Amino acid sequence: MEGAPLVVSLGDPAGVGPELIAAAWAARAEHDLPPFVVAGGAEILSAAARSRGLAVPVREVIGAAEALDHFDHALPVLAGADGDYTPGQPSHAGAQLALASLEEAARLVVDGEAAALVTAPIAKARLAEVGFDHPGQTEFVAAACGYDPGDAVMMLAGPHLRAVPLTVHLALAEVPARLTAEMIERKARIVAMALARDFGLPAARLAVAGLNPHAGEEGRMGDEEARIIAPAIAHLRAEGLDVTGPHPADALFTPRARETYDAALCMYHDQALIPLKALDFDEGVNVTLGLPVIRTSPDHGTAFAIAGTGQAHPGAMIAAIRMAGDCVLRRLGLYDD
Amino acid sequence: MEGAPLVVSLGDPAGVGPELIAAAWAARAEHDLPPFVVAGGAEILSAAARSRGLAVPVREVIGAAEALDHFDHALPVLAGADGDYTPGQPSHAGAQLALASLEEAARLVVDGEAAALVTAPIAKARLAEVGFDHPGQTEFVAAACGYDPGDAVMMLAGPHLRAVPLTVHLALAEVPARLTAEMIERKARIVAMALARDFGLPAARLAVAGLNPHAGEEGRMGDEEARIIAPAIAHLRAEGLDVTGPHPADALFTPRARETYDAALCMYHDQALIPLKALDFDEGVNVTLGLPVIRTSPDHGTAFAIAGTGQAHPGAMIAAIRMAGDCVLRRLGLYDD
Repeated sequence: MEGAPLVVSLGDPAGVGPELIAAAWAARAEHDLPPFVVAGGAEILSAAARSRGLAVPVREVIGAAEALDHFDHALPVLAGADGDYTPGQPSHAGAQLALASLEEAARLVVDGEAAALVTAPIAKARLAEVGFDHPGQTEFVAAACGYDPGDAVMMLAGPHLRAVPLTVHLALAEVPARLTAEMIERKARIVAMALARDFGLPAARLAVAGLNPHAGEEGRMGDEEARIIAPAIAHLRAEGLDVTGPHPADALFTPRARETYDAALCMYHDQALIPLKALDFDEGVNVTLGLPVIRTSPDHGTAFAIAGTGQAHPGAMIAAIRMAGDCVLRRLGLYDD
Repeated sequence: MEGAPLVVSLGDPAGVGPELIAAAWAARAEHDLPPFVVAGGAEILSAAARSRGLAVPVREVIGAAEALDHFDHALPVLAGADGDYTPGQPSHAGAQLALASLEEAARLVVDGEAAALVTAPIAKARLAEVGFDHPGQTEFVAAACGYDPGDAVMMLAGPHLRAVPLTVHLALAEVPARLTAEMIERKARIVAMALARDFGLPAARLAVAGLNPHAGEEGRMGDEEARIIAPAIAHLRAEGLDVTGPHPADALFTPRARETYDAALCMYHDQALIPLKALDFDEGVNVTLGLPVIRTSPDHGTAFAIAGTGQAHPGAMIAAIRMAGDCVLRRLGLYDD
């Protein structure tokens, strides 16, 4: 990993983040995971590992680079903020720790001390109570890079599907008014560039969903396809991008349809997230495209209800760490396909 | 089947309907299909069978009951309207034939000469050109029964999921304004009753999706959950129905979530159709609930582009015929679970 490990933020310490980070470290050989260091929470990680019956020695380190020396035989954790492990019982102190870990992790990756950032799940409402004023971690990372949040594009990626919601945390009633050809084009270009640079897909095939049932059925149910989406696709194609659509959204996620594109561009949150979670729930990764840093996250929440019970599946956390490492190698030209 | 076969409408003769009906008959023993008769199109069915390399003897019959004598060794077809087989080339004459077949099939099931109706796919825009003035076949069948279209509830059912779109062929921008607690309650009651009567689920578990991302996240993204959906659920629960929600739609179709309900009630077309087609494309059945007659349909269109090529998968047609037969037996109390 060229001398720098990945950095993983702790997430809400009362959620499933700490135990899944520990489970990922325990499975590092099986999944060929790149070395990573956790931003704080050494005691919490030890306790979370024990709650799953995992033997995970934790090694406190002072700087990220030091983690490379220890990763093979211990989980490296940056010395610093810590707390008590109270799974399923989120607290003010826990939210403060989650925010401190996220800020430290973002600083390390922006400064180049870490090769990429993997964020464990937080509870947005709780973080807001301790001063976090971003809609989500994606926008926080964009701000940490000095970027406009509109340049950070969320993609969900699993073994069966890559899907990009072009609008995200908006009431459904507000979605049609937010769609513009300019926004679709801007985000499509970011997706195409990121798929080339970080995913080894230099001529990515992008399939754009319609907004309305049957993609409007030639204007009989809504005109956004003709007025906004089709013109955006025409512009992108004129620029040489491999973009098709607008496709009827319900037909876009069948097994045969999924073979015809590398990423689906979706008009709203659930249009992308429903098929992703239906098909790839335990392995879905949320990856941020368009920023100078690489950032991934498991595509699930804090799951307070099952934290500490051993029921949480580590697949998405493992996939997020693996994907971040692969993106680093591709960006460095070192990936061995 | 108590002395009456199912009746299958021909669908658009230039689409995949005729060949899939023939393929279903050819697979009748393998799938233990109930006897059925096709409403017209004997020559077209023969030609469509030949195009797939299937040996399907066609037997013209005068009345539906006569089909029972022949079904084991020939595909029974009601003598009457017919035409040329021109797969992939829809025509005015073909649309007229599709409409005549649908009208005849609906008449037979309303009169009780057929036990249930299975409709093959039509092209709505083409049928409109020959006088069909319903949004779809579901509404046509409701009208044939003398029912309000609002009492005919479309459910999509496959091996992995049953999903009901509470609004159907509407522009997405119009969906929020169409949702009312009364409509949700009325349709939920129809679904619960039909699952009990026709699907052997006397205490069906209904899971209701939210409209907005994360089901509105406590009002941060839209208020339809609090204002409309939650009150409807409270009313239904007070009536003794097993109804939960509103659930975040993206979490509702994961493998684990799907184990917790018998049918998902969805706020709009693609919220139901995206997961159904992603999970069950080749076996999805569209079944009409709430009418005095049983009606099913394969959950795909005419697929003109592949008609006559042998590529169309008969799974959904077979599943539609099988499900219609099972519903008849359950309604008659003859189903052997």
